[in-house]
Amino acid sequence: MTGLFERHQPTLQAATDAAAKRDYWSAYPEVPSGKIYGETAKDDGLASYKARLAQPFDLPGHPADKSPVGVEISPFGPALGITYPAASPDLLISASRAAASQWASASPEVRTGICLEILARLNARSFEMANAVMHTTGQAFAMAFQAGGPHAQDRGLEAVAYAYAEMSRTPLQAIWTKPQGRGEPIVMEKHWRIFPRGISLVIGCNTFPTWNSYPGLFASLATGNTVIVKPHPAAILPLAITVEIARQVLVEEGFAADIVLLATDAPGAEITKDLVRHPAIAIIDYTGSNSFGSWVRENAGSADVYTEEAGVNSIVIGATDDFAGMCGNIAFSLSLYSGQMCTAPQDIFVPRGGIETNEGHKSFEEVASGITAAVDALLADPARAAGICGAIANPDTLARIAAARSVGRVLRESMPVEGLDEARTATPLILAVDAADTDAYGEERFGPIAFVVAVDNVTEGVNRAAELAERKGAITAALYETDEARILGAADRFAAAGVNLSVNLTGGIYVNQSAAFSDFHVTGANPAGNASLTDAAFVANRFRVVMWRRPVAA
Amino acid sequence: MTGLFERHQPTLQAATDAAAKRDYWSAYPEVPSGKIYGETAKDDGLASYKARLAQPFDLPGHPADKSPVGVEISPFGPALGITYPAASPDLLISASRAAASQWASASPEVRTGICLEILARLNARSFEMANAVMHTTGQAFAMAFQAGGPHAQDRGLEAVAYAYAEMSRTPLQAIWTKPQGRGEPIVMEKHWRIFPRGISLVIGCNTFPTWNSYPGLFASLATGNTVIVKPHPAAILPLAITVEIARQVLVEEGFAADIVLLATDAPGAEITKDLVRHPAIAIIDYTGSNSFGSWVRENAGSADVYTEEAGVNSIVIGATDDFAGMCGNIAFSLSLYSGQMCTAPQDIFVPRGGIETNEGHKSFEEVASGITAAVDALLADPARAAGICGAIANPDTLARIAAARSVGRVLRESMPVEGLDEARTATPLILAVDAADTDAYGEERFGPIAFVVAVDNVTEGVNRAAELAERKGAITAALYETDEARILGAADRFAAAGVNLSVNLTGGIYVNQSAAFSDFHVTGANPAGNASLTDAAFVANRFRVVMWRRPVAA
Repeated sequence: MTGLFERHQPTLQAATDAAAKRDYWSAYPEVPSGKIYGETAKDDGLASYKARLAQPFDLPGHPADKSPVGVEISPFGPALGITYPAASPDLLISASRAAASQWASASPEVRTGICLEILARLNARSFEMANAVMHTTGQAFAMAFQAGGPHAQDRGLEAVAYAYAEMSRTPLQAIWTKPQGRGEPIVMEKHWRIFPRGISLVIGCNTFPTWNSYPGLFASLATGNTVIVKPHPAAILPLAITVEIARQVLVEEGFAADIVLLATDAPGAEITKDLVRHPAIAIIDYTGSNSFGSWVRENAGSADVYTEEAGVNSIVIGATDDFAGMCGNIAFSLSLYSGQMCTAPQDIFVPRGGIETNEGHKSFEEVASGITAAVDALLADPARAAGICGAIANPDTLARIAAARSVGRVLRESMPVEGLDEARTATPLILAVDAADTDAYGEERFGPIAFVVAVDNVTEGVNRAAELAERKGAITAALYETDEARILGAADRFAAAGVNLSVNLTGGIYVNQSAAFSDFHVTGANPAGNASLTDAAFVANRFRVVMWRRPVAA
Repeated sequence: MTGLFERHQPTLQAATDAAAKRDYWSAYPEVPSGKIYGETAKDDGLASYKARLAQPFDLPGHPADKSPVGVEISPFGPALGITYPAASPDLLISASRAAASQWASASPEVRTGICLEILARLNARSFEMANAVMHTTGQAFAMAFQAGGPHAQDRGLEAVAYAYAEMSRTPLQAIWTKPQGRGEPIVMEKHWRIFPRGISLVIGCNTFPTWNSYPGLFASLATGNTVIVKPHPAAILPLAITVEIARQVLVEEGFAADIVLLATDAPGAEITKDLVRHPAIAIIDYTGSNSFGSWVRENAGSADVYTEEAGVNSIVIGATDDFAGMCGNIAFSLSLYSGQMCTAPQDIFVPRGGIETNEGHKSFEEVASGITAAVDALLADPARAAGICGAIANPDTLARIAAARSVGRVLRESMPVEGLDEARTATPLILAVDAADTDAYGEERFGPIAFVVAVDNVTEGVNRAAELAERKGAITAALYETDEARILGAADRFAAAGVNLSVNLTGGIYVNQSAAFSDFHVTGANPAGNASLTDAAFVANRFRVVMWRRPVAA
């Protein structure tokens, strides 16, 4: 063992402190700058990515008993042509089991040090990862760098920091001295150890393969569980690179590579269900749809399940003292990654009588057109539009946009992004509906589809948004309001619905954004997910504490 | 609000410190002494208990829509004749829901203060509780006082301390300042609140109605959930008194009494399943059999379930340097409360070639007879036997003893305890079997039934005991061994089986005993239960953290 824990301890300590304070902090710079990552880092990352294409992805020693799989196609056009080793669930489980006892026996410090080293190496590879994430998710490069690289690494580090804190809570040993009145006390020595739950399955999603997977992956790994990483078949590469790096670090430190495994499959022949149902799986982290999430929760047997599913996120507009800033901010939230974020807003509740603003009274139509005009302005420059919208991960999203056109009055048409001719792209479709049209806006319509919903007043908007969150789930909510009592009332109502609320965002921060070490992502308190990234509940149940004790002379 | 948190804060702080250090500590004196509890406390407690008998138990304002229930009969003889208000599951749920938002809105400090006040009042009523526990469980008075009173209160306090620590982990608010290069930083104010999961159901058991229920009850209550306490129909009184005190404190502090409810039923017409299946139940704490525990886990829907079920606890004997001390210690563990503790040993693995001791080599038969003779000696004095064995809670246990007689060679017959003529009593039945007779010793046989199992050597004993724990569950294990390498090897093996191990107990501490603030009770890592009393995992998921944020001027 090479002192990885000691080497990375300042990072761990800073992460732990940041999570307690919840001020801004980040371990991994989000700016894709040569000054930070090295002048050749960008080119090197692109070259590394390109060298992966049209090749088998080599994971030395990884178990495989099936033909290699891999049919990833970039939403920006070309097929990746990468094939990955494929193994049956039983082979994966047996390999994971074979590696388990060595990893369980390692100290929390050794495991934590290895996790921190993996994260440091992932950080150094952020440009390569950016290309991998871009061409599997459709995120534009800058976002793929940030969300797929440093922000995902921060979320992983956050999970490691929470896991280490929980594992350190009980001492390794203690002397227990019980007085016996005038007699000699009873004295016992007690020894505790952290014992993992078993095999952990991390099920990744198509749109944020690293950001959404790293918390579960690193929380389980740090607490001594072996991990099987199951990427979405359309977004294998980012997690294959992650697994590759993890296995390299493990082997260098004298551990079995199979402590971290990659479970690959082809669309239509997914092995996810077999893994979920396997009795050897003790922990499942899942990101994806509510329908499959529900299946996972029901079929996981005795495994602990942590999910981030989906929901219907709302914005409620009551009043604003910065109408232009509000419209611009909302426009960006609707456009970013073409609405394919689990945090993106879908429903914008606006009083049918209009609202008061710094520009005077604005009617419902004026509010709606303010938002659509802001989207148009934001996306007017094709290069900027491409950088904001990126591409559409899944072809089904285009069909969903087409179907949505007829369920309301079209305020803004969805259009392709100019200049990205080979890519699958779509700018926001914005529709006007009435509060009564719950069939239109009351279901999640994943992608760049938004509704401006006419309500009687802001209170009705808050209540409808909160009820929707309670019924369908919601990860974010936003409110524009100038009356403090109404703001506090909405904070109460959304808290009761288990939704994190952003109020009066008009500048360079967006409701979609969730910052590690400060914002908990998903509350676990409504159907959008049963867990939060990352709190103590997310890590504390991934291990057990076991003791032995014996008397000692007083 | 009357400053309960401030009043009890020294106790909370001491409990938190003790749980971190895990040295001996107790908030509530375990000695039933008039010097501590007041010179008239013993008589007053007995009088209070007697005044309950043959009366309706009054819980002012408690919902009821069914005829009162209550058929408790003391294992020491007389029927209690107490009837309790009874409500349908739907009425209980609706009353709990009606009280929920007020309790959810209270601060963690207010809730924690109320929990600590309830515990303090329970402590003052320990003599009354001792009588209630004695005459519903069959525990002898001294044990009923300790386990039903101060030790249970300590376990409740421990849960409150863990809950408060977890709730305090995230600040109420923070300022988040993100630098923007040369531009003005983005500054946000963020506000977090603790939000409960919903309604918590605590299902008590017959043998330890308070000790096993208080952790879940107080963990859920402190974290803002309303609680429905469902006692075993044969042991209602201890939890009815608990609920009575909780409701009194709540009302005094301006809260709805129905934040804590009592769910009563009659044997054969239990409402437990309806409550478990009710979608409004968010948290379930269960103590009882594996078979019903398995049903609860499978039928709880989306509720989080914390169980303490049962298992087969083992002692493995390899060698000892205090043969008499070992035999005496084991004899006490077998006899205490007639083996009706979930921590009581059942199987004693002894090498068929005998063991080395401070008294020279002892054959298998000599070890077995050493233990049986120690039981005989321990129970020779009828008064002492009554004080150790108490009575048998459930008549089925006597049938189980009778049935067990034929599955091995009887080393010691089970007998009634002399002088407790009206009571249902039984001293330990001890049988000799071979390691191959797994049908005999490989199942839990709840009650005073023990097997001395012949194995090839201590390693086989450890492995069989550990495998039994993995397959059937185990809460405790004990080892007698003088070789340090074998002790450490056994510690590894039992840790892998998720069992807490006690080594070389010969004095006044017993494998059955689990001390709050130091010993975690149940690991959650084998079928004897899926949770541990009390660790962070036991409390951290009983609430959610919800945020609202808004920009502030830099």
